[in-house]
Amino acid sequence: MTDVSGYATLDLERTRRRGYPEAVYCAGKSPAQVAGIAAALRERADLVTLFTRADAAHAEAILTALPDAHHDPIARLLVWPPTPPDPAGGPVVVLAAGTSDLPVAREAMLTARYLGRDTELIVDVGVAGLHRVLSHLDLIRRARAIVVAAGMDGALPGVVAGLVAAPVVAVPTSVGYGAAFEGLAALLTMLNACAPGVAVVNIDNGYGAGHLAAQIAAPVPQ
Amino acid sequence: MTDVSGYATLDLERTRRRGYPEAVYCAGKSPAQVAGIAAALRERADLVTLFTRADAAHAEAILTALPDAHHDPIARLLVWPPTPPDPAGGPVVVLAAGTSDLPVAREAMLTARYLGRDTELIVDVGVAGLHRVLSHLDLIRRARAIVVAAGMDGALPGVVAGLVAAPVVAVPTSVGYGAAFEGLAALLTMLNACAPGVAVVNIDNGYGAGHLAAQIAAPVPQ
Amino acid sequence: MTDVSGYATLDLERTRRRGYPEAVYCAGKSPAQVAGIAAALRERADLVTLFTRADAAHAEAILTALPDAHHDPIARLLVWPPTPPDPAGGPVVVLAAGTSDLPVAREAMLTARYLGRDTELIVDVGVAGLHRVLSHLDLIRRARAIVVAAGMDGALPGVVAGLVAAPVVAVPTSVGYGAAFEGLAALLTMLNACAPGVAVVNIDNGYGAGHLAAQIAAPVPQ
Amino acid sequence: MTDVSGYATLDLERTRRRGYPEAVYCAGKSPAQVAGIAAALRERADLVTLFTRADAAHAEAILTALPDAHHDPIARLLVWPPTPPDPAGGPVVVLAAGTSDLPVAREAMLTARYLGRDTELIVDVGVAGLHRVLSHLDLIRRARAIVVAAGMDGALPGVVAGLVAAPVVAVPTSVGYGAAFEGLAALLTMLNACAPGVAVVNIDNGYGAGHLAAQIAAPVPQ
Amino acid sequence: MTDVSGYATLDLERTRRRGYPEAVYCAGKSPAQVAGIAAALRERADLVTLFTRADAAHAEAILTALPDAHHDPIARLLVWPPTPPDPAGGPVVVLAAGTSDLPVAREAMLTARYLGRDTELIVDVGVAGLHRVLSHLDLIRRARAIVVAAGMDGALPGVVAGLVAAPVVAVPTSVGYGAAFEGLAALLTMLNACAPGVAVVNIDNGYGAGHLAAQIAAPVPQ
Amino acid sequence: MTDVSGYATLDLERTRRRGYPEAVYCAGKSPAQVAGIAAALRERADLVTLFTRADAAHAEAILTALPDAHHDPIARLLVWPPTPPDPAGGPVVVLAAGTSDLPVAREAMLTARYLGRDTELIVDVGVAGLHRVLSHLDLIRRARAIVVAAGMDGALPGVVAGLVAAPVVAVPTSVGYGAAFEGLAALLTMLNACAPGVAVVNIDNGYGAGHLAAQIAAPVPQ
Amino acid sequence: MTDVSGYATLDLERTRRRGYPEAVYCAGKSPAQVAGIAAALRERADLVTLFTRADAAHAEAILTALPDAHHDPIARLLVWPPTPPDPAGGPVVVLAAGTSDLPVAREAMLTARYLGRDTELIVDVGVAGLHRVLSHLDLIRRARAIVVAAGMDGALPGVVAGLVAAPVVAVPTSVGYGAAFEGLAALLTMLNACAPGVAVVNIDNGYGAGHLAAQIAAPVPQ
Amino acid sequence: MTDVSGYATLDLERTRRRGYPEAVYCAGKSPAQVAGIAAALRERADLVTLFTRADAAHAEAILTALPDAHHDPIARLLVWPPTPPDPAGGPVVVLAAGTSDLPVAREAMLTARYLGRDTELIVDVGVAGLHRVLSHLDLIRRARAIVVAAGMDGALPGVVAGLVAAPVVAVPTSVGYGAAFEGLAALLTMLNACAPGVAVVNIDNGYGAGHLAAQIAAPVPQ
Repeated sequence: MTDVSGYATLDLERTRRRGYPEAVYCAGKSPAQVAGIAAALRERADLVTLFTRADAAHAEAILTALPDAHHDPIARLLVWPPTPPDPAGGPVVVLAAGTSDLPVAREAMLTARYLGRDTELIVDVGVAGLHRVLSHLDLIRRARAIVVAAGMDGALPGVVAGLVAAPVVAVPTSVGYGAAFEGLAALLTMLNACAPGVAVVNIDNGYGAGHLAAQIAAPVPQ
Repeated sequence: MTDVSGYATLDLERTRRRGYPEAVYCAGKSPAQVAGIAAALRERADLVTLFTRADAAHAEAILTALPDAHHDPIARLLVWPPTPPDPAGGPVVVLAAGTSDLPVAREAMLTARYLGRDTELIVDVGVAGLHRVLSHLDLIRRARAIVVAAGMDGALPGVVAGLVAAPVVAVPTSVGYGAAFEGLAALLTMLNACAPGVAVVNIDNGYGAGHLAAQIAAPVPQ
Repeated sequence: MTDVSGYATLDLERTRRRGYPEAVYCAGKSPAQVAGIAAALRERADLVTLFTRADAAHAEAILTALPDAHHDPIARLLVWPPTPPDPAGGPVVVLAAGTSDLPVAREAMLTARYLGRDTELIVDVGVAGLHRVLSHLDLIRRARAIVVAAGMDGALPGVVAGLVAAPVVAVPTSVGYGAAFEGLAALLTMLNACAPGVAVVNIDNGYGAGHLAAQIAAPVPQ
Repeated sequence: MTDVSGYATLDLERTRRRGYPEAVYCAGKSPAQVAGIAAALRERADLVTLFTRADAAHAEAILTALPDAHHDPIARLLVWPPTPPDPAGGPVVVLAAGTSDLPVAREAMLTARYLGRDTELIVDVGVAGLHRVLSHLDLIRRARAIVVAAGMDGALPGVVAGLVAAPVVAVPTSVGYGAAFEGLAALLTMLNACAPGVAVVNIDNGYGAGHLAAQIAAPVPQ
Repeated sequence: MTDVSGYATLDLERTRRRGYPEAVYCAGKSPAQVAGIAAALRERADLVTLFTRADAAHAEAILTALPDAHHDPIARLLVWPPTPPDPAGGPVVVLAAGTSDLPVAREAMLTARYLGRDTELIVDVGVAGLHRVLSHLDLIRRARAIVVAAGMDGALPGVVAGLVAAPVVAVPTSVGYGAAFEGLAALLTMLNACAPGVAVVNIDNGYGAGHLAAQIAAPVPQ
Repeated sequence: MTDVSGYATLDLERTRRRGYPEAVYCAGKSPAQVAGIAAALRERADLVTLFTRADAAHAEAILTALPDAHHDPIARLLVWPPTPPDPAGGPVVVLAAGTSDLPVAREAMLTARYLGRDTELIVDVGVAGLHRVLSHLDLIRRARAIVVAAGMDGALPGVVAGLVAAPVVAVPTSVGYGAAFEGLAALLTMLNACAPGVAVVNIDNGYGAGHLAAQIAAPVPQ
Repeated sequence: MTDVSGYATLDLERTRRRGYPEAVYCAGKSPAQVAGIAAALRERADLVTLFTRADAAHAEAILTALPDAHHDPIARLLVWPPTPPDPAGGPVVVLAAGTSDLPVAREAMLTARYLGRDTELIVDVGVAGLHRVLSHLDLIRRARAIVVAAGMDGALPGVVAGLVAAPVVAVPTSVGYGAAFEGLAALLTMLNACAPGVAVVNIDNGYGAGHLAAQIAAPVPQ
Repeated sequence: MTDVSGYATLDLERTRRRGYPEAVYCAGKSPAQVAGIAAALRERADLVTLFTRADAAHAEAILTALPDAHHDPIARLLVWPPTPPDPAGGPVVVLAAGTSDLPVAREAMLTARYLGRDTELIVDVGVAGLHRVLSHLDLIRRARAIVVAAGMDGALPGVVAGLVAAPVVAVPTSVGYGAAFEGLAALLTMLNACAPGVAVVNIDNGYGAGHLAAQIAAPVPQ
């Protein structure tokens, strides 16, 4: 463990222990705190670190300390070192029900890619027009794990799970208004999906969905 | 208006005023009170009256006063006089996502029939197996109004609405457990349906759904 | 289907399939994304497209691509091509309980008009002064479908439904404060309306209400 | 203060201090505990005591100790001594929106009567048929305080308040199902009533409503 | 009724009908709309009108049309004509549990005063220091109606009601944080007050509380 | 650790580790499972074990295995061995706001006593009659820790905390109805208590409150 | 598809399509309906069918039609044919935080076993005594998928996920009382688990958890 | 009591009565009001006063009146006089589960210190990496009272309570997103902690947690 200026305790052995990178949750931390953490990581290029929920000020602070970090502003994600590992395990397919679900879907896709999986992203295939998702069925059925991000009624993961054999990681998004209640409606829909095979993560938690999908699709230890 | 023993005020002119039968909501009334209302109606065979949410004791009390009333125990519904009117207007198709949604779906179907519509009932066509609902699409597309009863994730009405031109009356049911929250999850799903054309009524309100569908499919006044 | 720059999949055959225009939900999309969609539509003047929940930046982006689009800033709605179709089917009457409900009511009215119905709008007729709504009863009773937008206690749709034979599409609005809970109180009131014949849509969903009313009042196929 | 067997502390001076009777809330107390309290009151016929929410076992226990107590099983209320005081102050009118609201409405009416007011009870006048409540307007307008008990949409108190000058005490009832959420929907409606002049008490709290109405309509001290 | 530019219907006969002034709820209306209403009132100085929930832009718009209107920025209230009527009926005492509850308490006090009552205001007397409220007991006991505004735990109204004979109008405020849930905690506390005699209005509804208190303390018609 | 028939793992070293007895939560366990655990404890009279939330069947099963266990049916508690330890540390005073809160208050008192504290119990001292709690102030002020059980508005702990220097452990109870929401209202009140010094435990958790009070009032290690 | 007496549509091709057995959700179906479904399956011993949430009456009805079905009353599960398939894929480890979580944990374990996985069950290892779960760490780390059933605070899955590389399927249970809100507290805890790698299913949904774990641990297609 | 300009009533005798300083809750007060209170305190350096939830404008206003007040911007706290008392009683240890919980943890630590306790602060020891909290166990076990601030799943207090004999004061924080519901998830987790010995305060209420811990760890009166 590495102590950072009295406000954070980095768990640098986590990669060894669990086999997956560390992630720094930026929301609620000041840019200065995030910069301090980034600086502490500079000597450890053997470790992959994701910075999640990074706003513009966080990103600027991180890029000052780690100038070559990969930054995806839509997904609010930075990763250092910037090159993802060579893919291993099975493919992860990420679906976004609508265009507005794209930030969450990209966060999931990038997380899975930096955890070492091959990924594909399919956008704007909500249940209001079933033919859209059905037209991608071949690609979806090749996945070892599927992530589905959906807001509003959150019905897409249950429909997809009824069509495939692989596990579906459902991410409710806060897209919608009124009785969407900031993603609560989609969350409840997914928890009650009639088709078995749907695993749910927190609202807007693209990072968690991508992480889980990468674990599911990990190479099987011999 | 007819006053019944100080506990009810019958609105016998409602049929004339709105063109639809009166309904007596039995829950919360004692069997004796319901019997009193039934007896007061005996002289008015020109009026159709539905008794909704009637348990066994209510039904027995009503049948004592109106022995030839039609009784559907699954739908917890009694109607007097027992013969439905000749159908007019467009057809109403009622879908039940699962077998457990049948009581609500039957209540909707019978209400629409006693309000004067032709009705069809399709059971066990939830989104976990899309081919089931797709196999009935021709029949569903002939409807002037569609009622869809669904519990758990409540996803069926939105999927159906994306496939047809007629309005879909969605009835969330209390079928499910845990995060279904007695029908709340299905209710929220339906309110947030991505496809336009979904009208929502109260949880388990088969009567209201059937009534609304009958109004939508009513003969257009010339 | 038309793919737009990897972030949207337009369903241009929807008009043919369902008989109603496509709608682009602008909230959660960037102005650049909305502009891309608008540009993709420029060659298809045979299709009516509504842009809903468009803020000022969305509107500017759309008007750059489609300069003659109709823009109603109160309803946050743009439509292209700008001329509504000739009216067909029955009339739709829209009521706003209070002045603050006007944006939602206008969105409903314009949607119904661009879907091909004759529309009327009546404002500020809440239940605190019953004589206000009663004075419009003749007009309301001529409607084939009625939309009622109301916030706060949301009591108006139930009162109206008790006075007419046509279906009432109730839209709860987020008008109010405290225990109005952003429209939740009005939503629950409408779902529990004592009078049958009330269909409920999502909070502030004027578009959905107008669409549903237009479907209900559509010309009956021969 | 009088101590009863270590489980209750009677506040026998309350009548003197506040000018109103003591009430014993029976729910959650055992019949034996209630009997003990009743026995302790036997010597104090100068004090009026109400026993509220008394089920059959409570009632039997109380009647053993105070055989001439007045018992209204519908309202689940017992009062001793049994004769109400001579009326003073202004009249209290109690409305029940539906027959199922009668237990709560009777509890309110009896409480107001035993606190010394003249009372009237009007039943089954919900907003689904406005003419019903309008036909009683003269009587309602003579009240110094009005109690309105309503479940489901809870819309009646707001409509009444818009028609009269006297304060309206609104009691939501747990009548209804589904999204009525055991009276929550009616409670929210009443808190958001568009017409000012609506005071709300707890769900099913007929006792509190009657007490409040009696205080409002109390003789004005000279 | 007077129609204002298609967005409002003024109910100018309300004073005659109910005996109380009209109120214009400014939130959700544009300054231009409020100005239009103010201008329409200019010719009717025989009517008292309150403008509630008026922010700075609303106030400026109103004062342009009615320059001598009384404006209380803390209470966000304007009144025209500016001089309150001569007091009649019984006194109304308003309590604010804490300094932060002052805006709501002032709105209640001013409303009651402009509806024709004598008023007193007592501030910062929460239950954390009981001696503070007990030191004002003589003044509080002289009231014909008492308004208590309290946020956080909302316990003050129940404590006061246990000490007096007059009705207590409880106004929960949104003061607090965390599990105060924007006033919901205080609202529930007040609805469950152990002492009878507590009437509850909407969260932050100082206007409604003052109106109700003024009705309760109104001169009794002979 | 001791394994019981594959359904429980007893943590018999807990007394040594934490210094407090083990507790067996009976709800959700079958009487046979509870009996098995009781039998496994028979050889370990050096350990105090509490059986909480034991219904009649649980109690019978436990008493068969441990016939001399102490059983308090009101508190639904059994303890073995039956003799409490000699008191040490400071006194714990337990208050029950109403008679209906007695089961929870007794559970707290007995837990504290079997954890080795002197205890006192005061009943029926709710805030509706402040003089009742004020009359016990001397006793309450002698406590090193105070437990206050209250349902309905849950206001008593905050009032007590404003009068004393010792910490107050507040236990919301499910006593009440309607908007008490099974103890939720009291819980929120206590979390928002204006006076500092209020610690809250779960609804109806008398065991947890007594345990916490015993820890607070524990003898200070030298 | 096979139609059963108008109340169910069996999807007998599902095993072929998705590779997993069909499940019949018994709750909400009458014993007669369940018996009808069981009888329809009798000729198809090539298909594995699970009957979930079967109470005693359901079980009796099923066993009449399929006398050799495997019945686990604790898990409320029946399976036919009764012999599970030979294990394939990786091992699934199921943890129950407490004894009361056993029914849900057994349902998960049996589902995974009948879907073809090797399974292990570990009971009573909640976070209140960390050493209990740490003592099983070797076994847990051998799993390809882990199911953790926990009620009350639901903290166990997050703690386990921080210790292992395999995905954790978290099942909140309705064990607990008060602010456990029938499993809602545990559900929220699990959705907010600080450690990534936690997938959540519906409250008490042991079937869904076991199904998902079996999919995750399935043999990787070559 | 000292009256400040009609908007506040200072309870300057509170220190004498309860033995603890007064606190001024700044949120909801204007800077001018807070400045007025600060000025009124200038003559009473014998009293310690905490200003909580002070934003930058509040802080500037206070520092103008009391220039040497201690100001901790992270904790949003000011104290005057600035020097904490000499420590007495037992030590208080404060844990922050993550860096984002630091503001609340610092508010707790500073409050306990200014109430006269020795304090220690440990940061970033959440349950996702158990070894982090276990490495501090010796220090934690020396505490007489422990404060644990945690957001998201809020699991840390229950884990700590299972490892120590001292009471744990749990402060849920609003850190997190989605189904964290602004701290509600952490609050429920803590109320349902499986280990006894957890006392819960309001979300983000570092002041209350520190105050309670200081009371628990106070010197025992002889």
